[in-house]
Amino acid sequence: MNAFNKPSPIPLPATFNLGETATDLEDATPRYRQLAARLQQLIEQGAFPSGSRLPSVRMLAEQEQSSPVTALTALRYLENLGLIEARPKSGYYVRAKSLLLKEPRNTTVTEAASEVALSKTIMRVISAASRPNLVQLGAASPNHVLFPVSRLRKLLTANNRTMLEAIGNYDMSMGHPELRTQIIRRYAHYSVLLKPEEIIVTVGAMEALNLCLRAVTQRGDTVAVESPIYFGILQIIESLGLKALEIPTSARDGISVDALELATRLKGQVKALIIMPTIQNPLSSVMSDSDKQYVAELMEERRIPIIEDDIYGELYFEHHRPRPLKAWDKTGNVMLCSSFTKTIAPGFRIGWVAAGRWQQEITHLKFTSSVATTSLYQIALARFMETGGYDHHLRHLREAFQLQIRRVSEAIERYFPRGTCLSRPRGGYLLWVELPKPCNTLKLFDLALAAGIFTMPGCLFSTSERFDHHLRINCGDLWTPQIEHALKQLGELSQRCME
Amino acid sequence: MNAFNKPSPIPLPATFNLGETATDLEDATPRYRQLAARLQQLIEQGAFPSGSRLPSVRMLAEQEQSSPVTALTALRYLENLGLIEARPKSGYYVRAKSLLLKEPRNTTVTEAASEVALSKTIMRVISAASRPNLVQLGAASPNHVLFPVSRLRKLLTANNRTMLEAIGNYDMSMGHPELRTQIIRRYAHYSVLLKPEEIIVTVGAMEALNLCLRAVTQRGDTVAVESPIYFGILQIIESLGLKALEIPTSARDGISVDALELATRLKGQVKALIIMPTIQNPLSSVMSDSDKQYVAELMEERRIPIIEDDIYGELYFEHHRPRPLKAWDKTGNVMLCSSFTKTIAPGFRIGWVAAGRWQQEITHLKFTSSVATTSLYQIALARFMETGGYDHHLRHLREAFQLQIRRVSEAIERYFPRGTCLSRPRGGYLLWVELPKPCNTLKLFDLALAAGIFTMPGCLFSTSERFDHHLRINCGDLWTPQIEHALKQLGELSQRCME
Repeated sequence: MNAFNKPSPIPLPATFNLGETATDLEDATPRYRQLAARLQQLIEQGAFPSGSRLPSVRMLAEQEQSSPVTALTALRYLENLGLIEARPKSGYYVRAKSLLLKEPRNTTVTEAASEVALSKTIMRVISAASRPNLVQLGAASPNHVLFPVSRLRKLLTANNRTMLEAIGNYDMSMGHPELRTQIIRRYAHYSVLLKPEEIIVTVGAMEALNLCLRAVTQRGDTVAVESPIYFGILQIIESLGLKALEIPTSARDGISVDALELATRLKGQVKALIIMPTIQNPLSSVMSDSDKQYVAELMEERRIPIIEDDIYGELYFEHHRPRPLKAWDKTGNVMLCSSFTKTIAPGFRIGWVAAGRWQQEITHLKFTSSVATTSLYQIALARFMETGGYDHHLRHLREAFQLQIRRVSEAIERYFPRGTCLSRPRGGYLLWVELPKPCNTLKLFDLALAAGIFTMPGCLFSTSERFDHHLRINCGDLWTPQIEHALKQLGELSQRCME
Repeated sequence: MNAFNKPSPIPLPATFNLGETATDLEDATPRYRQLAARLQQLIEQGAFPSGSRLPSVRMLAEQEQSSPVTALTALRYLENLGLIEARPKSGYYVRAKSLLLKEPRNTTVTEAASEVALSKTIMRVISAASRPNLVQLGAASPNHVLFPVSRLRKLLTANNRTMLEAIGNYDMSMGHPELRTQIIRRYAHYSVLLKPEEIIVTVGAMEALNLCLRAVTQRGDTVAVESPIYFGILQIIESLGLKALEIPTSARDGISVDALELATRLKGQVKALIIMPTIQNPLSSVMSDSDKQYVAELMEERRIPIIEDDIYGELYFEHHRPRPLKAWDKTGNVMLCSSFTKTIAPGFRIGWVAAGRWQQEITHLKFTSSVATTSLYQIALARFMETGGYDHHLRHLREAFQLQIRRVSEAIERYFPRGTCLSRPRGGYLLWVELPKPCNTLKLFDLALAAGIFTMPGCLFSTSERFDHHLRINCGDLWTPQIEHALKQLGELSQRCME
């Protein structure tokens, strides 16, 4: 009897057959232990990979022709062994093998504020991304099948009249009322209370960040940033002739609040703080609530505006969404920037900013930057959020990313040189890899590119050289043997970079 | 016999009846003169308004049961009288009554470069534009029925796979290849030879202008501009902390090249020239080819980069499209900016720049400004241009605007105070009105707004006070009795502003 031939949430490969593996077990063993042993064998042989969901209690009982109690007892037995874990309202999942790799070391040194001169390196790396047939381990862009593109397509074309008006009219407003309303409703759940007119819709979060920095700084000013930090932010800083003051940031808990406190003691020296408190790029770290509150209050006291980049905020892996730092903002000192690029529609380039005290300046700058943001996409997004598909979609997205991160992590453990350290992302789909020195990852980038693999070298994420042996890995693409092969190659190439 | 009851290109009002008006004519009068007299009466009574097309020779002959020769002779007779005019391959049109109003006086004084502090006034005026039910005589936005919105909607949704990919993917390129190719093909007809990769697609022309200015100036620098000039450009200048040096500009032939020559003599003083050589906003003037060439060569010689704003370039009223100034650029000193906002799809916000020598700087700035421009709209626009509907559409658009400008001009002559001067647009859909001093048009703006009419006061178009009694009028909306009434009211209100 092969009970597993019925469809299960994750289909079994043909070679794995519960009936066959069960023959060694004695009849005297309790029924639940027999079942548990067979499941254990399947997990160990890879039929259920790390992070995958096991069949439900009901399905397992039915397939095994046992009672639900027996099936449940078997699952709890495996849970006690640490092999699987229960997730509320979702079922049992194969626990990730605890990785042996250490997390990347925190930087501890704060260097002086530095001018940024990375644009040539960055543009060289980015322009390579568009070559055809590359394995995408570099750019932070998930596979498009993970997004609700069909749904959005329908919403875009659903209302003929709306569509015609949106194409034919010159909208000079700062955001479509429907979308503004949806955005503030969502924030209200996370303790951020806003009015619709406070939302200024932008061309992605990048425009929002750019406008915020322009509103509060002048050429030559110093801006505090996390270290490492998303290279796009360093590029904005460079393009505005600003200096970056890099604050040590941990791969687990985000920015070092002590270092930030020290670095901002001298009045008037730091003109703004750009920060990603919830799922940082590239570290995927999350600041604690108490750190968020401390930073919000400290910066307010020191009159340093905060520009919060929250684009990965919805992609948390914990049970509840971490609150944006803006939740502790009492005086409008925090400019909250985000977008739908990472969550719903990468191709729409719709972002926003709630600019607090700088609402009027940002409104003016937005007009001079691009007048207004195209309304058709805004309408489609508002309807998508309104009709309730958003949360459902986000749950699936988070699940897919979490599974994907586990698989890539395990492959890195398998294939990368001894001494490699690896972040444990608390959300999103980015891994931060610290290779053993003296592996130069810009050299690795070139070697990998020649082999058809696109990577992001660590030197893009800092003005210093401290991340020259680091690598950011995109886990947004669907797992394939091709990706596993690319990771294996990357491991081999990084070995070569050390010789 | 009422021959005109058959459908004619512009339907006749019921009160006009050729049969009735013909009774006074003696039989001895030649047939063609009888016909001409009747047509003349119809024109004078307003049945065929200025700029409207008369029935074709064939149709007229058929309706009148005369020979085509008679009909043609009648039309030529009226042409000799100056009442109608032939347009090649199009037919006979009622000639605009020659307006009695003078053109606005040229400014002749060049003042010192000045900081711009207009943003509050501009934002106050613009924010009023979104109030519901206003008669739109202010914003430069044509009625959406004039745009090929249904066609674009079909093109947007035609290819399911393309659409899904465009929504789901994070495009980091500087422009979709199809659109870049279409744009450079078109320019080739106007003696501007470019390669596809020279086109950087932007969020409207506004982003293009903003990036160009940022590429060649620093805070405190002086930029030469036409006077009056589109307020959006003054806003960019203000937001970047630059100074504007206003060069006198004629409502007919554009910038005074002599004044420009004088103003740029001192080496290093002027860091850039922003100019709209073809259909200037708000003057709708067109520079001569020789002036364009002179300015291109002079600025090259003096190492002053030119930022050319060509967004109205396709909306010329002459027989051929005036060449962009870029056609005389031999060294990459001209950054050519334009968009589809005024010609195909106001709601798409798709523009571009061919940045000459500053290609690399602009590429970098574009990335930091908004990463990339959404590709779905680019694909739809490329297909629209490719499938050949563009020229046909532009012909209709130009015809509609020309007719509309005539009607508004005639209404202004009828209703505005004695001494009013009025531009004779050479393209586009904007009129520039000079009211007799001391009429303050910002005061007029408030009075008109209270009466439900949105206007653009002249003070937005200069840092000086020299256009405080001017007004820009949008003729992009379809003619209705409501618009005529609004113009009448505006005339009365401007009378009140002088008392």
